Parts: sequence; structure tokens; C-alpha cells
Amino acid sequence: MIRRKETDMSSNVIVGLSTSLDGIASGESEADFWDVHNAVLGWVFELASWRAEQGMDGGEDNEDSRVWARQNERIGAQIVGRRMFDFGYEPWGDNPTFHAPVFVLTNRPSERIDKQGGTSYTFVTEGIAAAVEQAKAAAGEQDVLIAGGLSVAQQALAAELVDELSMHVSPVVLGQGARLLDDTGRIDLRQVSLTSSPSGVTHVRYEVVR
Amino acid sequence: MIRRKETDMSSNVIVGLSTSLDGIASGESEADFWDVHNAVLGWVFELASWRAEQGMDGGEDNEDSRVWARQNERIGAQIVGRRMFDFGYEPWGDNPTFHAPVFVLTNRPSERIDKQGGTSYTFVTEGIAAAVEQAKAAAGEQDVLIAGGLSVAQQALAAELVDELSMHVSPVVLGQGARLLDDTGRIDLRQVSLTSSPSGVTHVRYEVVR
Repeated sequence: MIRRKETDMSSNVIVGLSTSLDGIASGESEADFWDVHNAVLGWVFELASWRAEQGMDGGEDNEDSRVWARQNERIGAQIVGRRMFDFGYEPWGDNPTFHAPVFVLTNRPSERIDKQGGTSYTFVTEGIAAAVEQAKAAAGEQDVLIAGGLSVAQQALAAELVDELSMHVSPVVLGQGARLLDDTGRIDLRQVSLTSSPSGVTHVRYEVVR
Repeated sequence: MIRRKETDMSSNVIVGLSTSLDGIASGESEADFWDVHNAVLGWVFELASWRAEQGMDGGEDNEDSRVWARQNERIGAQIVGRRMFDFGYEPWGDNPTFHAPVFVLTNRPSERIDKQGGTSYTFVTEGIAAAVEQAKAAAGEQDVLIAGGLSVAQQALAAELVDELSMHVSPVVLGQGARLLDDTGRIDLRQVSLTSSPSGVTHVRYEVVR
């Protein structure tokens, strides 16, 4: 579905985020973190594809589920922020659903951690460009996903390291919270796919035009 | 395409706006007004349906053009802000393309002005609820459109007078400017249509859930 130059076999860097219609992707404080999380990611947790990633049966096998599965099929490595890592490390468990190398952008050096099922955590202290370079090398011909936190995605956008934006927009206006796209410079885009679903979530992908 | 109760023959109040992907609908100053205007409304000016409204032939007869025409077919009255009116009055000319009663929300009382082709300008000084009431009465079974300025649309949203949001999202991130949806309260929505187009503009309509 993504138009790509036939000769371009290198991996794309994708920022993939779920937001409200007003672009809110995260809480501004711990107090509203879960409210925002549930409002913009609520559509995910009943999907058959999401449940399968968690090792669970059942769930809804609908267009949302197929969009989620298609996005994840293409991912060969991820980049996450340190705060997201610290928050997620315990719940992600011994066999995390990444099933791919994860690069953690941080100021604190740590030894690489290997988990079951292909997930590893590598700590990168040399900044976003180094994290992208290492993640691309690990991903090979697959893509690199930045799905949070917001700061990592914003750093990658500001450094012009992002090739695609993949947004999942829930049918709600939240009115407050933190946006991915806030005080960025101008970014020209080309829409590469738009998928509607009975849930009312809009799945839209854009290529960054350089 | 809009699901509506069969018994509901009264007019809906629609906020219809063109924005960037980061939700920017207008400049923050006169300096960036035209940059934003061209970035978020550039898709309109070559449409066959838009040109026909201006009394011009030709233009592109594509999905964007049909979406534009469908939206305008349903409109029996409009509400605009005073600043938009002052800005537009001269260029809109003697036979404005509204072809419907226009209610101007203002603090300065003025006599009603009648133009050719069904357009009239009525100045409402009693606030947004009064403007909506008068516009609904004028629209009959057709809908009321609020297409700007932002302040009028925001006042209508805050007063819970809006039934539908109709957004036209251009494939660009602007990074700065004024948003329609900023510091609103939470608004729950139901998506009623999603239309893609070769231009990459996303046309999405939502019903406000009360």
C-alpha cells in the first residue's frame, strides 16, 4: 500500500501514534496519563491481532485488527524513550511483544538486555541520530518504528530522520494533553493510505516529502 | 451519508473547516494568514464545484469537488464572525457565493444588508446562542454552517451548539498557527463519513455525541 521507489530497499523510519482528533497522544501529567491512554488506545485492546501478540485468543477480527497487524509485520526494530522503557520494562515481561531489537534513547548507559522471543534492549546515549542508525542496521530491509514516547518521536522529526507518519485517530476531542505535532517546523507530506473502520478510528499514513 | 434519526427534520449546526494535519486552521497573525490560508485551502481553488460557485467554468471534477458540493448543498444559512465579515465583505461582492442568509456575530449593531442571489447579512449582538437560533430558523430543514472565524466556531463548540464537525485535512504539518480544537473540553464523537481523494486531503465528518 506504501508507494516506494523500487530501488529503495533500505528501512523506513515510521512514527506510529494513536491520537485524539485534536492530536493529543499522551497525558501532560501522571494524573491524566491513563485517561488519555484509554481514550486514544482503547480501540486496540480488543483486536484479535493485538491479543495474538499478547499470546491471547479471540478478539475482534476487523479492519482495525488488520491495520494493526499490517503495521507490525513491517517492523524490524523499534526506538523508545527511557521514560517509556522504565514504565514498561516490568509489564512487558520476559517475552515482550516487540519480538525485535529495541533501542532505548537515554542519558544513562546500561548493558544490553536480552529477552525471549527476539526482543533485546540496547541503550543508546549518543542521541537520536545514533539510535536511528543502529535501529536501521538491526532492521535490515524492514522498517523502524517509533511509537513513543512523544519526546523521542519529536526529536526524530526535528532531526528530519522520519520517513513516514502513521496516525490512528480516535473519534474524540480530549481538549488537553500532549501533542506529537506541536511547534514543529513545516513538514510537507504525501498521503499514502487512508483506512476507515466501523470503530470510527481513522488510520492514515503519510510519507514525508523532502 | 450522514446517519440521522428519521424523525429529526430540524437543521444541524455544522462546523466545517480546512486544517493541516496538526490542526492549524488559521494564522496567528496577519503575517502568516495567507501562508496558512493557502496551505489548508489550496485544494479548494481548482475544484469545478468551487469554480461554479464563483460563476467560473472548468476546474477539476474529482472526489474533492464532489465533497465540496455535497457539503454546500445541505447549507441553508451560515454564521460568520465580525472579523471575517469585515475582511470578506468587499471581495464577496454584490452576488456573494453564500446564496443564503448569513448571520454575523458582532458587538456592533448594524442594519441588515441584502445582496443578490439570496445572500443577506444579519448582525447578531446577543451572542452565539442567538445567532444559532436565528440561523436555524432561516435554514428551515437545511443545515447551518460555521466555517469561520475560529472564534465563532469555538464559541459554538463551548456552548454545545454544534451537531457535526466536518474537517478537510491537508497533507501538511504547519508547526504554528491557530487551532480550532485547542483547550476545549472533552467532546465525544461518532464518525459518519471518511472520504479520501487523490489530492491526499482527508474529508472526515463526525457527529457530536451528547
